[in-house]
Amino acid sequence: MHPGPLHSLQAWHAAELITRRELTAENLVRACLDHITGREPQVHAFVHIDADAALATARRLDAGPLRGLLHGLPFGVKDLFDTFDMPTAYGSPIYAGQQPLADAAAVALCREAGAVLIGKTVTTELANMFPGVTRNPHNPQHTPGGSSSGSAAAVADAMLPLALGTQTAGSLIRPAAFCGVVGYKPSHNRVPKAGVKSLSETLDTVGGFARSVRDVALLGAVLTGDARLADPAAFSQTMAPRIGFCQTPEWALADSDTQQAWAQAEKALNTHGKPMALPPELSGLVAVQKAVQAFETARSLSPERLRHHDQLSAPLRALIADGLAISGETHAQHLQLTAMARRQVQAVFGPFDVLLAPSSIGEAPAGLDGTGDPLFCRSWTLLGLPCVHLPFARGRSGLPVGLQLVGAYGDDHRLLAAAHWVHERLTH
Amino acid sequence: MHPGPLHSLQAWHAAELITRRELTAENLVRACLDHITGREPQVHAFVHIDADAALATARRLDAGPLRGLLHGLPFGVKDLFDTFDMPTAYGSPIYAGQQPLADAAAVALCREAGAVLIGKTVTTELANMFPGVTRNPHNPQHTPGGSSSGSAAAVADAMLPLALGTQTAGSLIRPAAFCGVVGYKPSHNRVPKAGVKSLSETLDTVGGFARSVRDVALLGAVLTGDARLADPAAFSQTMAPRIGFCQTPEWALADSDTQQAWAQAEKALNTHGKPMALPPELSGLVAVQKAVQAFETARSLSPERLRHHDQLSAPLRALIADGLAISGETHAQHLQLTAMARRQVQAVFGPFDVLLAPSSIGEAPAGLDGTGDPLFCRSWTLLGLPCVHLPFARGRSGLPVGLQLVGAYGDDHRLLAAAHWVHERLTH
Repeated sequence: MHPGPLHSLQAWHAAELITRRELTAENLVRACLDHITGREPQVHAFVHIDADAALATARRLDAGPLRGLLHGLPFGVKDLFDTFDMPTAYGSPIYAGQQPLADAAAVALCREAGAVLIGKTVTTELANMFPGVTRNPHNPQHTPGGSSSGSAAAVADAMLPLALGTQTAGSLIRPAAFCGVVGYKPSHNRVPKAGVKSLSETLDTVGGFARSVRDVALLGAVLTGDARLADPAAFSQTMAPRIGFCQTPEWALADSDTQQAWAQAEKALNTHGKPMALPPELSGLVAVQKAVQAFETARSLSPERLRHHDQLSAPLRALIADGLAISGETHAQHLQLTAMARRQVQAVFGPFDVLLAPSSIGEAPAGLDGTGDPLFCRSWTLLGLPCVHLPFARGRSGLPVGLQLVGAYGDDHRLLAAAHWVHERLTH
Repeated sequence: MHPGPLHSLQAWHAAELITRRELTAENLVRACLDHITGREPQVHAFVHIDADAALATARRLDAGPLRGLLHGLPFGVKDLFDTFDMPTAYGSPIYAGQQPLADAAAVALCREAGAVLIGKTVTTELANMFPGVTRNPHNPQHTPGGSSSGSAAAVADAMLPLALGTQTAGSLIRPAAFCGVVGYKPSHNRVPKAGVKSLSETLDTVGGFARSVRDVALLGAVLTGDARLADPAAFSQTMAPRIGFCQTPEWALADSDTQQAWAQAEKALNTHGKPMALPPELSGLVAVQKAVQAFETARSLSPERLRHHDQLSAPLRALIADGLAISGETHAQHLQLTAMARRQVQAVFGPFDVLLAPSSIGEAPAGLDGTGDPLFCRSWTLLGLPCVHLPFARGRSGLPVGLQLVGAYGDDHRLLAAAHWVHERLTH
């Protein structure tokens, strides 16, 4: 019926089997729950699991008509999203035990499409740098990345086929890279953020993780409401995308593992792309993104810094202090500069459908006291462009390495179709 | 010491007196509370008032050092913003009695600056069209406008010098116009939205109300963190702004009251401005704004439409149905079109510092079953530009009429200085 153990089925494959009534949601959910039971003591991907509720929901779905694209598919949700039936703590002791009245909009959209919520996954503290307890499923001595640590690790370990996360600097693409899964950051503001703890209006983006481009596109179609993202025709097309090989101004900081993955990709995709450099006016965006994030985070977290300062970690206090030291005048200039850069980057996509770019400096670093550097994600997040991380290589420690594809604003469907095409060529 | 009753003091004047210790926060708060007690049975501006807490806070502020720009100033908050010490129902029975754990960021910023929270003000249902109980303080048979109904009415009635609101279509400028107060919609995303019920990422904007431009600029400086907004020098400048008289493509729908206010303003400002028309590519934005609002609201309110459909009003259900009927592909095109329009509108501000434009079709309509038409605000909200409503005229029913000034993105300080200059000339 299907290759490998049930819990490791890809989402699109499971959806097909469930649609044909060759697989029940209950059996799929049970398989995932069983695998979680075995692996969670090593991985620590979850802060909350409700197995009984998930099984009950699955049985209800099996007894009823097909609900939507995610019918019967188990999913996990970063604990930065509100859930009406599970506590939501945003990775902070300030919110320990908080029970929201309503789901985040993205969670509700997934449930509407038939997805079965298994549990809340570990986030770093308030989706910032202070790590949670999750370990990299490929090597428990290494970070899974952050801030969507638990979602990336759970999908990588085949505990779940799909999980939700968010990115403000590199919190989707980086953990996807470190855990070796596909991560998708949609175009800025294409997915509703209602009910997600807000840090930075300019940067926060809701997205998700899966083990294939087709899977993450299924999730993306539900989150954006754009059916083109999950159009099966997009994944059988033979037309090659025009790829710009964009090493970015930060390339000198990529380590040998990322360099090697880059060389491998250039070789595999050679005839379909050519090197390109971002125009000079788009250099310096990393510093702007850092400042925008610090300024907006410091102000968005005003309730926490004013009334619960002693419950914030030292690194988060330092980020907030950095943000408070930036003047509102400077921030206004940064917002104007961001608007201008978002405008200027459009021209880059004239000759290219997508850009290939580094996702991370290299493999997941050893140690659990940090979550790695989002360096290679900062500019794309500031630009608001859709990104997909593609895992396809291994680094010197045997951990996953990959690259990201970046699309034009609002062209998520084209990006995902291209990502499927590229990923096939990188992995076969 | 000051002209008129204490409760009707302007914020900047009260702040000066409190700073010089010639007025106590307690006395000011008490004066406002007394006035509220007398008038609230007619106006219905509040859903929650905590007089004891406000007085206690005022006494604490009087006993301590100066906290910031709003030290000792009473303020009200639209019940769409979370407050840690007051229930927050978003104008919907779904959230009746909800007690958030934390303030919205904007509320926390005001408290940090020394403002004293008096209460939560009436919002329409989930900041949409279904009206709350507030009446227009100038005539209780007329709407105060919406969705920030209570905040505008409370400031107009001199219950409070300052109040917070939000705008997704015209929910700051329209009630400001109908109630005859100054309303300020900052540049999109300059003020944090954390802890504010989210309806539309592309449109939602936090702003506020006051009875003068100087007052609303004081609030704006705190909300944006940009000290230039409250720089007293900006309000004593004699340099005239270059004003573009922009009737907008919807001008034919302005009624005779707005036409008369327009003629009056053109006459008063004549030598400092000239007529201008938006370029043709910026027509049609009203329809795009409507579609973006409907699509994003329908998806942001997924938790409510899926689990509490019977507790939504018929008009809101209709808006949601409209939004769900729009495809994700169309929405992606609208987002791309919005990004392009935001780019194109920048050129408009070459020859002009600000644009003068209609705020509303005319006076506040009679009747309490609606909140009036946001027609003249939709395009500016979609464009993300900062706007200030200036009240200066009366319509045929004796209700307030005025116009708005619109600034370039991120140039809120220039807009507010120009608005002060213009308002002086329109009212003297």
